Amino acid sequence: MIMMLPLQSQTLENLTKYVNPLIGTEKMGHTFPGATVPFGAVQLSPETDTLSYEINGKYNPDVYKYCAGYRYEDKTIVGFSHTHFSGTGHSDLGDFLVMPTVGKLKLNPGTAQNPESGFRSRFSHENEKAEPGFYQVKLDDYNILAELTATTRVGFHQYTFPKSEDAHIILDLMSGIYNYDDKNVWTYVRVVNDHLITGYRQTNGWARTRTVYFAMEFSKPFKSYGQKNFDEKQVYRGFWRKWNQEENFPEIAGKKIRMHFDFATNENEKIQIKFAISPVSQENALANMNSEIPDWDFEKTKNLAQQNWNKELNKIQIEAPEKDKINFYTALYHTFINPTVYMDSNGEYKGLDQNIHHAENFTNYTTFSLWDTYRALHPFFNIIQPKRNDDMVKSMMAHYEQFSLKMLPIWSHYANENWCMSGYHSVAVIADAIVKENYSGNPEEALQACIETSNKRQYEGIGDYIDKGYIPAEKNGTSVSNTLEYAYDDWAIAQIAKKLGKTDIYNEYMKRSENWKNVFDASIGFMRPKIENGSFKKDFDILSTHGQGFIEGNSWNYSFFVPQNPEELIKVMGGKKKFSEKLDELFTMHLPDEFFADTEDISREGIIGGYVHGNEPAHHVAYLYNFAGQPWKTQAQIRRILEMQYKPTPDGLGGNDDCGQMSAWYIFSSLGFYPVAPGSDEYSVGSPLIQNAILHLENGKTFEIEAKDQSEKNIYVKKIELNGKTVKDFKIKHQDIMNGGKLVFWMSEKSSK
Amino acid sequence: MIMMLPLQSQTLENLTKYVNPLIGTEKMGHTFPGATVPFGAVQLSPETDTLSYEINGKYNPDVYKYCAGYRYEDKTIVGFSHTHFSGTGHSDLGDFLVMPTVGKLKLNPGTAQNPESGFRSRFSHENEKAEPGFYQVKLDDYNILAELTATTRVGFHQYTFPKSEDAHIILDLMSGIYNYDDKNVWTYVRVVNDHLITGYRQTNGWARTRTVYFAMEFSKPFKSYGQKNFDEKQVYRGFWRKWNQEENFPEIAGKKIRMHFDFATNENEKIQIKFAISPVSQENALANMNSEIPDWDFEKTKNLAQQNWNKELNKIQIEAPEKDKINFYTALYHTFINPTVYMDSNGEYKGLDQNIHHAENFTNYTTFSLWDTYRALHPFFNIIQPKRNDDMVKSMMAHYEQFSLKMLPIWSHYANENWCMSGYHSVAVIADAIVKENYSGNPEEALQACIETSNKRQYEGIGDYIDKGYIPAEKNGTSVSNTLEYAYDDWAIAQIAKKLGKTDIYNEYMKRSENWKNVFDASIGFMRPKIENGSFKKDFDILSTHGQGFIEGNSWNYSFFVPQNPEELIKVMGGKKKFSEKLDELFTMHLPDEFFADTEDISREGIIGGYVHGNEPAHHVAYLYNFAGQPWKTQAQIRRILEMQYKPTPDGLGGNDDCGQMSAWYIFSSLGFYPVAPGSDEYSVGSPLIQNAILHLENGKTFEIEAKDQSEKNIYVKKIELNGKTVKDFKIKHQDIMNGGKLVFWMSEKSSK
Repeated sequence: MIMMLPLQSQTLENLTKYVNPLIGTEKMGHTFPGATVPFGAVQLSPETDTLSYEINGKYNPDVYKYCAGYRYEDKTIVGFSHTHFSGTGHSDLGDFLVMPTVGKLKLNPGTAQNPESGFRSRFSHENEKAEPGFYQVKLDDYNILAELTATTRVGFHQYTFPKSEDAHIILDLMSGIYNYDDKNVWTYVRVVNDHLITGYRQTNGWARTRTVYFAMEFSKPFKSYGQKNFDEKQVYRGFWRKWNQEENFPEIAGKKIRMHFDFATNENEKIQIKFAISPVSQENALANMNSEIPDWDFEKTKNLAQQNWNKELNKIQIEAPEKDKINFYTALYHTFINPTVYMDSNGEYKGLDQNIHHAENFTNYTTFSLWDTYRALHPFFNIIQPKRNDDMVKSMMAHYEQFSLKMLPIWSHYANENWCMSGYHSVAVIADAIVKENYSGNPEEALQACIETSNKRQYEGIGDYIDKGYIPAEKNGTSVSNTLEYAYDDWAIAQIAKKLGKTDIYNEYMKRSENWKNVFDASIGFMRPKIENGSFKKDFDILSTHGQGFIEGNSWNYSFFVPQNPEELIKVMGGKKKFSEKLDELFTMHLPDEFFADTEDISREGIIGGYVHGNEPAHHVAYLYNFAGQPWKTQAQIRRILEMQYKPTPDGLGGNDDCGQMSAWYIFSSLGFYPVAPGSDEYSVGSPLIQNAILHLENGKTFEIEAKDQSEKNIYVKKIELNGKTVKDFKIKHQDIMNGGKLVFWMSEKSSK
Repeated sequence: MIMMLPLQSQTLENLTKYVNPLIGTEKMGHTFPGATVPFGAVQLSPETDTLSYEINGKYNPDVYKYCAGYRYEDKTIVGFSHTHFSGTGHSDLGDFLVMPTVGKLKLNPGTAQNPESGFRSRFSHENEKAEPGFYQVKLDDYNILAELTATTRVGFHQYTFPKSEDAHIILDLMSGIYNYDDKNVWTYVRVVNDHLITGYRQTNGWARTRTVYFAMEFSKPFKSYGQKNFDEKQVYRGFWRKWNQEENFPEIAGKKIRMHFDFATNENEKIQIKFAISPVSQENALANMNSEIPDWDFEKTKNLAQQNWNKELNKIQIEAPEKDKINFYTALYHTFINPTVYMDSNGEYKGLDQNIHHAENFTNYTTFSLWDTYRALHPFFNIIQPKRNDDMVKSMMAHYEQFSLKMLPIWSHYANENWCMSGYHSVAVIADAIVKENYSGNPEEALQACIETSNKRQYEGIGDYIDKGYIPAEKNGTSVSNTLEYAYDDWAIAQIAKKLGKTDIYNEYMKRSENWKNVFDASIGFMRPKIENGSFKKDFDILSTHGQGFIEGNSWNYSFFVPQNPEELIKVMGGKKKFSEKLDELFTMHLPDEFFADTEDISREGIIGGYVHGNEPAHHVAYLYNFAGQPWKTQAQIRRILEMQYKPTPDGLGGNDDCGQMSAWYIFSSLGFYPVAPGSDEYSVGSPLIQNAILHLENGKTFEIEAKDQSEKNIYVKKIELNGKTVKDFKIKHQDIMNGGKLVFWMSEKSSK
């Protein structure tokens, strides 16, 4: 029976209760536990430390752990800041750290070893609660209860104080994540009146040229305020003798500023703060605040945030054991955090040209970690968040149009191109949207942008790639993975051309998409760096991830990276049998410690044999058994990865969640299928982990998945029926889902080998 | 006969030929010789050096000499930058230094001692031409002729090159005037195409938070370009291995950047540049460029600039010897440079709140050096530039409204309050405009702003001043001059109140205006610091300018600073005879060298006896003889000052021109009258230097001044008639001028003592 219940009239379950934002906050997950709404620009979350990127001029390796600001194992909190990445392996942000205190004013954060040396406070997980759209914690050193919620562009703080004549709220404007000494470019603050301040913070961090404007309003007037500028190299100014700038002086500017606002509080008195941000101006920040939270009702805002989450989570209703429900809905939660809205309530945003633009008929997004998210996150959005994904493609097109280089984004946030990781995978996101008929912009222009991006000869070996069909190892340290990724991306461009009936372009790019063959060394059966003269690099290690021509991966993992043509890969690797044996070896081999000791992104737990799930290049690999005629091995490996790599605990994620890519892999795989090659309209079938799932689509249709007899043991697929018709090739089509209908798996303990 | 010829139909003389912009570029004048239109935002002028403010962490005293970027005695030019102050004693600006070169590319300016070490070039005054709206110079080291002209917001460069395969135009984005190591906060540039770039430069200089946006267009496409970032502390960025940022990379950002644009040139090939600035955005800069200079006709733009100047200069047509005409029209030129337009062609500007505002029905101005200019420049504008002065008052009101401190400007530029010098002299400018009925805004609001400003108790002793009637010497290093200036300013506020019929306010402020009496020590007959307990400071020197309670002046000069009530001052100083003798002593005494050795602003030539004309506090003093019944001494001293302090040579100014204040003094005094107390509608008569002058007023009327028998010897006024009626009290009223008419002086060799 096909359920045709429209989204609006469906009965919402309470699904937020299955989300545990603390999952991934320990080890390598790099998620944050704080309060945000889906895709919110504000992610208001505690920082347990704000390490400096350098110690005595040398890179501080510990800083990597603090990509999301919060480590579950830490014992102190330094404050609550308003912007975070979810699950990244490089970082930035952490803007506008707010901390309530009582007692003697301290304007430095102090150290974890000696919390009393600064304004930080001890806390314990017993007094901590993390929910979608809500976070609370008791700050033990001050006996202050901190509660946080948010709207899209506004953080809402509620601090319950003890009685004190000496209560403070600190606004640390120099604190940040991945904090270089010179990261703070400029800060400006104006105290508008005794309960409102506005200003901006400008940083030179991972994003090179970035400014966030803010408006901060207090529910109670402060009785006094002040600031200290920690910049050692301040310019002398005549007015230092005319004004005491540090106390009650309303015009504040400098590079390293911390402010304080002073109150007298009664026992259990609540002081609330609304903190709005904008990429454009102080005025827009204030307008965002007033439009999104016009009153001082914390509970109301919290309820709205949680209802918002519940509505989004209810887009997929599942039946599964409690543990799996927690994993599933926490993963779903994590897929709905990045990209983030990057636009004021009036439609304005700052473009890559550093000019102010108005988004015409779309919502502008930022935080595109595309090397990660083109694989499963954006394909997942094409099913469950099609409107948002359409807007994200439009945002990527705006990036292209406004960027002097005229390139689609690689890794972009806050009007900056960070140039992180490889390939030009925007084209895969665009192809996936166009092929799946989920792009309402002009597809011809999108194709043109893809073509222009793929022909930037000066970028990472593209010139050589075009001329020679591969990137010579002498020219580029990641010559093999680049060649492989470009070849896949070119195939994606070809799919757009095909959809638009552009045969010449299709043929040209299909030819380019075969370039992976140029770095395949048939003599060893692996992808291998090729040097300028056309011969393979002699000195070569298929296990190492360093200096072998691959980015975040070794040849073992990357040799399977031909998602656009597994059939041909199987052929060159010696046929289906040999190929399957090679996959078997990957999943069972012992990878010596030395080969991931230096890799920041993954922990030992992120690895199964030689298969590295904690990094993305192999995310499609377990599905390749399907193409080799051994689908039962796909089924077994998928279930194994789902079990091993995702656990409902703070240390439950086997690698960086990478803006939701790891979580999107979980959602797809637990539903029973996966987009091996985004840009294709096909999904490859695995082994569903749910008993039942109902996808409530934006088009009003529903798609149900039932896994009959599914259990921890019954992991093998005996039979599949789509709308009553048997599915034999372990493939389902995107339109089969979007048209609504029912997919039934019959599960068994025995493989159908 | 009263001439009633309207301004439009008057025959314009060629008066630009009498203007020599090089006057004041040697010694202490601090003027610049480059190209600007009247009150233009762009002042495109050569820099002969760009010294660092510090050398090895210590203040570099030479930097003071370079307030305007150009020193007549220098032998090299480092380039041409787009923003300058005229005649200031502190400085900033010098944005966007452009320099054409041929030969090997050099990206550092080099040194004056060894010009070959950098991109600077030797030049000589023989090959230099400075005119209103036009500057040209031959750059000897490169055989390049540089020609500059401008519109309000756009600089127009024309460089005539020799034949070269290796021609460059350098854009130095880190060069600036009064350059601190940390002054460059951020720079952003995008290369839009092969002939257009846009971007911005953000500095933390005298103005703390200042950004100038720009658009730069070349008449010929560059064949290549590049940049070098001189910041030693750059953050490592992954994309350094992906892109060569230094060559042909269109997205540039950092703190210390110099760019180059490369060309092949034919013999005598001209390359032109249009360089537009904006306080708001790159887009506005580009719009300013396209609206002000839509074509590439350098001669046309130059002619328009010079016609613009000639029209302004023709507002006063004089008969006088050639030398005096040069002094007069150069002074007139210098009065029409600052304040500067601070608003884009679309009406947008950045306010002190760092928000973007739209000027409704006025032109927004900046660069208010009010301690200097309230005295004569703004009163002069109330006669000859009434519309602009009205807009300047509106700009000051906008400053007040947008400033978190809610204070009228002290010394403001580019949306910053620099807090330079003392008093709150905005109120005098506003009073002068309102009393003279030249303010079209709301005078009640203006009065309120004046009152609020004068009651900022925390600012420079105002609280004590209000409570005790003087500022105790213990509290403030310039307690006496502050008390005197506040008292005058309070009188000015009282005049507004009187005009608006607010008797209570009038009485209150008239009472405050008598506070000068509290620092007058009758026992010695001088103004003197008073300490907290009400007694005068014991240790005291009436000659010294350091540590005696006065700013830029000694007690000798400041003791005459009661412009609001000379009659009472004369009384407390012992009557007219004693007062006149005291003035005689001032003008004839010998001031030992030690008393100005440490004073930066004035040279020996800026002093007559003990009278210091190079600083402003005594500017009204020579006119005080009128009040003591000895007008012939006013007449003699005025003529003496006019002769001694203003010469038609590069070293001709006896002190900083101070944004036109020194020049405005010259214009008034050479016309025969002066505003002793701005805020009064009366002028005090001196001794005209012209033979005849016709003032063409904006209201269509003309006011003629004839000085019969005036000569170098005939400096005494025998008789004065206004419209045929004898003037006996050596006073004329503002309305007498504005109504049009004729003032006739009969001059004589003998005083009418």
